[in-house]
Amino acid sequence: MADSLRIGIAGLGTVGASLVRILQQRSNELAITCGRAIEIIAVSARDRSRDRGIDLKGITWFDTPEQMASEADIDVFVELVGGASGQAENAVRAALARGLHVVTANKALLAKHGVELATLAEDKGALLNFEAAVAGGIPVIKALRESLTGNHVSRIYGIMNGTCNYILTKMEKEGLSFEACLKEAQRLGYAEADPAFDIEGNDTAHKLAILTTLAFGNKISADDIYLEGITNISSEDIQAAAELGYRIKLLGVAQVTESGIEQRVHPTMVPLDSVIAQVDGVTNAVAIESDILGELLMVGPGAGGNATASAVLGDIADIAKSRPGAQQVPVLGRPAKSLTEYRRAKMKSHEGGYFIRLTVKDQAGVFASIATRMADNNISLESIVQRQRVHVEGAPQTIILVTHATMEDAIRKAVKAIKNEKYLVSEPQVIRIERT
Amino acid sequence: MADSLRIGIAGLGTVGASLVRILQQRSNELAITCGRAIEIIAVSARDRSRDRGIDLKGITWFDTPEQMASEADIDVFVELVGGASGQAENAVRAALARGLHVVTANKALLAKHGVELATLAEDKGALLNFEAAVAGGIPVIKALRESLTGNHVSRIYGIMNGTCNYILTKMEKEGLSFEACLKEAQRLGYAEADPAFDIEGNDTAHKLAILTTLAFGNKISADDIYLEGITNISSEDIQAAAELGYRIKLLGVAQVTESGIEQRVHPTMVPLDSVIAQVDGVTNAVAIESDILGELLMVGPGAGGNATASAVLGDIADIAKSRPGAQQVPVLGRPAKSLTEYRRAKMKSHEGGYFIRLTVKDQAGVFASIATRMADNNISLESIVQRQRVHVEGAPQTIILVTHATMEDAIRKAVKAIKNEKYLVSEPQVIRIERT
Repeated sequence: MADSLRIGIAGLGTVGASLVRILQQRSNELAITCGRAIEIIAVSARDRSRDRGIDLKGITWFDTPEQMASEADIDVFVELVGGASGQAENAVRAALARGLHVVTANKALLAKHGVELATLAEDKGALLNFEAAVAGGIPVIKALRESLTGNHVSRIYGIMNGTCNYILTKMEKEGLSFEACLKEAQRLGYAEADPAFDIEGNDTAHKLAILTTLAFGNKISADDIYLEGITNISSEDIQAAAELGYRIKLLGVAQVTESGIEQRVHPTMVPLDSVIAQVDGVTNAVAIESDILGELLMVGPGAGGNATASAVLGDIADIAKSRPGAQQVPVLGRPAKSLTEYRRAKMKSHEGGYFIRLTVKDQAGVFASIATRMADNNISLESIVQRQRVHVEGAPQTIILVTHATMEDAIRKAVKAIKNEKYLVSEPQVIRIERT
Repeated sequence: MADSLRIGIAGLGTVGASLVRILQQRSNELAITCGRAIEIIAVSARDRSRDRGIDLKGITWFDTPEQMASEADIDVFVELVGGASGQAENAVRAALARGLHVVTANKALLAKHGVELATLAEDKGALLNFEAAVAGGIPVIKALRESLTGNHVSRIYGIMNGTCNYILTKMEKEGLSFEACLKEAQRLGYAEADPAFDIEGNDTAHKLAILTTLAFGNKISADDIYLEGITNISSEDIQAAAELGYRIKLLGVAQVTESGIEQRVHPTMVPLDSVIAQVDGVTNAVAIESDILGELLMVGPGAGGNATASAVLGDIADIAKSRPGAQQVPVLGRPAKSLTEYRRAKMKSHEGGYFIRLTVKDQAGVFASIATRMADNNISLESIVQRQRVHVEGAPQTIILVTHATMEDAIRKAVKAIKNEKYLVSEPQVIRIERT
């Protein structure tokens, strides 16, 4: 048997502790499968005295990730610290600079510095694996980076944030408000005390930016993503969606268009009978459309200590099975130096169907006026219905429109024109419909 | 850039021709992604004169796969000939004996000779990749062999035959008979002129046997699979399933039980609101349940020239990205020599829910008798309903039972006891319900 693979783990939170436990408990079978032992040589975490329920005897402790990355006698640096900059970044740079392989679960770091780090890794002949950074246990990085080699991807989309999907699922199944479901998510540990990063779509955007690069071969551009969170989704939207044969999901979508690449994160209507519509709760899903393979959909746990540790372990095992300096999988699907400049398609040119919910004054001519504003902008309607359970004279009315495929620009103009008519009693709700 | 990877392709049917076309059209980008060019050096097929719409200029022609495997100056032998023995087997053995890497789409060959071939490959330090052999374009082999390293799989199940899924989908959506849907599948090229191999479940069984080994680490045992095809599924079953909240799918299922490994292929009721129930037409799906990752489901095209060629290309690219003799991924997930003996769990000990449809004479006491036979065998019923649209005095009645989880043995005994009562007017229909 070959020499053991010596690893150092920075960050001993839920994922790190899971990983240590699995590596220790399954060391014999891992050695057989990988053809050599995987040995934890070093660890680093903030608090040395904390009881994590794992045995760190015989493992060298480092006070900082960077120190471990620079000094430990390891082959692989495992980064589970998190954060786009600071300790995690410095440590990963230090490890790659020494030619160590790096395994990381850090989507923020990759979304921000992915291209530089990939370039550094490739210059040094090191591997940089990050399956756990996107959609947890779902092997979407491997699918894009390896299985789909040679394919031209046209679109990639997915449910990549368990917090949002849990809230939307619960709102629909139990008819509760956004706020009530967010509270429940927080109680169960599915949402942070400050949930903004998840529910505003930033977390999904980080993951999407990484997938976009793997799919289309452009440089990572996480700042060029159209972003809309789920905080404005009401029970009424969810109910109206169901009646129209749709379900609302927060999707990250990247697609190739004539004018460039569209990257967008927003609440989306997907057909009720589509596979992705059945993806409930904290589960994630990613769909990839490509020209040779066709459509591939993967569904699985997007977070959680064990699922994430499983993805990290798969990345470590890939290195263990290869021989030093042998494997040349380009970090971002193709060599970092050959990644193209990101060309952003304007959101105004987005084409698709739209759901529009308007709350209007109960007055004559509103219906006709709305239809006219749509026609003025060449928007072809699939349906326009006045939705009311009980008609109360003088009470505001709800009107719901569903459009055929049209340009976002036309929708914005039509909605603006309708707002100018002064019969709206609240902000119009516009939700994009995604073809699945 | 490193030396090019020299490949030889045996078999130029739909998949082979697709593969040649893609490798030629995308040679430049593949060279960038893989870090070296992939060159087709040799081909072999039955009929040299046939026009396949591909350019074979400059490529050495061999009259037999075995001759190419033995003599061609190649690094990788790509086997797209098919068949469990004969030419394909001889050629693959010859290639591995020379230490060539092998990529194959041949499930029959692997189901029959997989362990021997894996042993030979590992002895020679050669890679044997076979992503295309199971579920076409779905990267399930890679998921099991690489991503899930360290996980203990408890169950794997899936829709792995497009012909059957097309027929079942069409029967439900259009209310047509099995025979009518089979004819339509044949007309569209989704079913062979002799469809037995698909509709009797043998094709699914071959794929399942391979997945079972990757999941559980046992030697491949394709002959030890409980097999039931879809030829006995009637429109009435499909309709009754829908009314009960189920959909019928032909699943291949392998799971670990106390008494060994269950491998079974049979029509199965899955809950209507499960993700796998939405997998329609010729699409395939595979679900893997494991202890660290949790549940992973992958959905995609299970057949077709391009989807299969994509999987073959991914396998070739994996070799191109590695360096000769460098990568050591064990062929069947762990070294062939460490695979355990297959321990078959008896089908009689299978535990699960059951759907039973009985057509009985219209006579007093039948309902009570059926319920009693169930109780005699300690079978707990979820429901027992007499199903009839219009009651015609004296006409046969349909009774449908759904059981809670119980043992197959008890079901067999109860059904036998019911048959002995002589009030059945046709063979009882028994369909297993699968937890999803």
